[in-house]
Amino acid sequence: MPTATSGAALRVRLLSNHVMAAATPEAKLLPRAVIITGGSKGYGCALAEELCAEAVRDGRGLHLALVARDEKGLIETEAAVLKAAGTSSTSGVTCRGFKVDLGKYEALAAKMEGVMTFLEETLTSWIGSGGSDSQPKAELILIHNAGSLGRLAYAGALTAEESAASIDLNVTSMLLLTQLVLRRFSQKAQLPGNTLRIRVVNISSLLAVQAMASWSLYSTGKAARDMFMRSVAADVLALQQDVRTLSYAPGPMHTAMVQEVLDSCPDKQVKQGFEDMQAEDKFVDVRVSAAKLVCLLGNDLSYESGAHVDFYDALKNIKKMQKSY
Amino acid sequence: MPTATSGAALRVRLLSNHVMAAATPEAKLLPRAVIITGGSKGYGCALAEELCAEAVRDGRGLHLALVARDEKGLIETEAAVLKAAGTSSTSGVTCRGFKVDLGKYEALAAKMEGVMTFLEETLTSWIGSGGSDSQPKAELILIHNAGSLGRLAYAGALTAEESAASIDLNVTSMLLLTQLVLRRFSQKAQLPGNTLRIRVVNISSLLAVQAMASWSLYSTGKAARDMFMRSVAADVLALQQDVRTLSYAPGPMHTAMVQEVLDSCPDKQVKQGFEDMQAEDKFVDVRVSAAKLVCLLGNDLSYESGAHVDFYDALKNIKKMQKSY
Repeated sequence: MPTATSGAALRVRLLSNHVMAAATPEAKLLPRAVIITGGSKGYGCALAEELCAEAVRDGRGLHLALVARDEKGLIETEAAVLKAAGTSSTSGVTCRGFKVDLGKYEALAAKMEGVMTFLEETLTSWIGSGGSDSQPKAELILIHNAGSLGRLAYAGALTAEESAASIDLNVTSMLLLTQLVLRRFSQKAQLPGNTLRIRVVNISSLLAVQAMASWSLYSTGKAARDMFMRSVAADVLALQQDVRTLSYAPGPMHTAMVQEVLDSCPDKQVKQGFEDMQAEDKFVDVRVSAAKLVCLLGNDLSYESGAHVDFYDALKNIKKMQKSY
Repeated sequence: MPTATSGAALRVRLLSNHVMAAATPEAKLLPRAVIITGGSKGYGCALAEELCAEAVRDGRGLHLALVARDEKGLIETEAAVLKAAGTSSTSGVTCRGFKVDLGKYEALAAKMEGVMTFLEETLTSWIGSGGSDSQPKAELILIHNAGSLGRLAYAGALTAEESAASIDLNVTSMLLLTQLVLRRFSQKAQLPGNTLRIRVVNISSLLAVQAMASWSLYSTGKAARDMFMRSVAADVLALQQDVRTLSYAPGPMHTAMVQEVLDSCPDKQVKQGFEDMQAEDKFVDVRVSAAKLVCLLGNDLSYESGAHVDFYDALKNIKKMQKSY
């Protein structure tokens, strides 16, 4: 469900302004074409709204492609984003939902063709014919936000079907979608003289680096995605392309997934931890976490390509950057 | 191809004797039922021979189930193991090959049924009827050695088919096989009063923790496996079962995979690194690496359950243990 901008999210944005101004006074605000998987609800929706708010504030062009299974959710998120952008046609924000089931990876390339064409047309109009002044004229951001918790169960109690489905959705599809985007667009990011910047973001988790009882499917998937991001970072460094990857652990947010944990976690100790967090109101606001990711995306210097950056560490890094100016 | 025992492997074994004698003077040498996937050649074959050599030396019962696609290789390894065990029927070593394609995970449970029955019969005869003196009477070891390099290519050049096949074989099958074994046998490892110990070993790699250009499929799979081992370690700790997991990076060995790297790696810098290792004869002997893993398996105290232990670090740990006595 679309969420209202919180005061904390606004503070993160003001911080972002400050850092950007200090870090890259010459930086051009390139228009952005963004794919968000799982863009119909929860964190995906918050990211869409936050990117939109930033685009409107800074007068940056933004073309959003939301990818999800849930058609109704896509329509709602689309409406929320366009509302946030205002009715003026000069806002430069477009947003379109694409119904794709990422769990069925065999048909992924065909299903994503519409998204790719939407992005390609937009990017072509921004980049133009290129020419001798070749330099970045647009940014393409792929945000892998879709994912499933998988059933919470001790490994011996997991079935083959649910395990395979979890790996297909959370790992295989994510690899394939990244490969598709790089195949289609990375030539434009070739240094020197690239006309496009590409950023790939994996929505990761603390569970990518820390195991918890009964969470093996989730952890295994997140660790695989993190390493894939590091591998792609190594690839593009060798290829000398203006591509950066990031695994961002968004912090513990009170999304539908938390209710799933409270309802289904068989491990008493882990479940108790979540109940305590709820009782103590320790969850992170989705919009605050989304604002921080948008801030990171605007500040390449604040993260190493391929790195796993946690919500809490991201704040520290940005504060450190402020101190150094 | 079966390999001869090297002098270095013998030295590792002598070290193992010393550590075991010092660390656990009361330790009983439990008979072992062992599954080795990818047991028809290379490192799987070396592990089979090393486990056999240890069993013969210490008079420990050993029932080996070798799992692989290659029937000819299975027969050769079986012969080599039985030859190493000697012709005497009192050696207590049996070895049987099972033709299973781990890449086809949909049929895995059915295909593994023969292996499970073979192990179950053996374990039942060792454990007996149990009774009031319930204590470990046997050890079950599952060694996930099977795996593919995947095509070495920059991410944008990988096809959907080869990516999915790599994840199916290296991740999904490995999860499913672990789950099968735990489902079938972990009740016997329930504390207190367990009659069985279970050890699960993932043959990992430096690439599980370090990315290299053009190795994304391999790295992603190994990182996923490592995290699954850590997750299972968390599970069995919560369940209080005598199950331990280990991700062992066997060091750079001159197996068929190295030739595959030299033939196919598109990244000049990475390829040069392998060529230099070959020129400088820096590869680790497969039997030395296998002997070290067998040594680790005999010394639970030398590794934390779920840990990633590298061939080089394993040596250090054991040396540290020696110093402390």
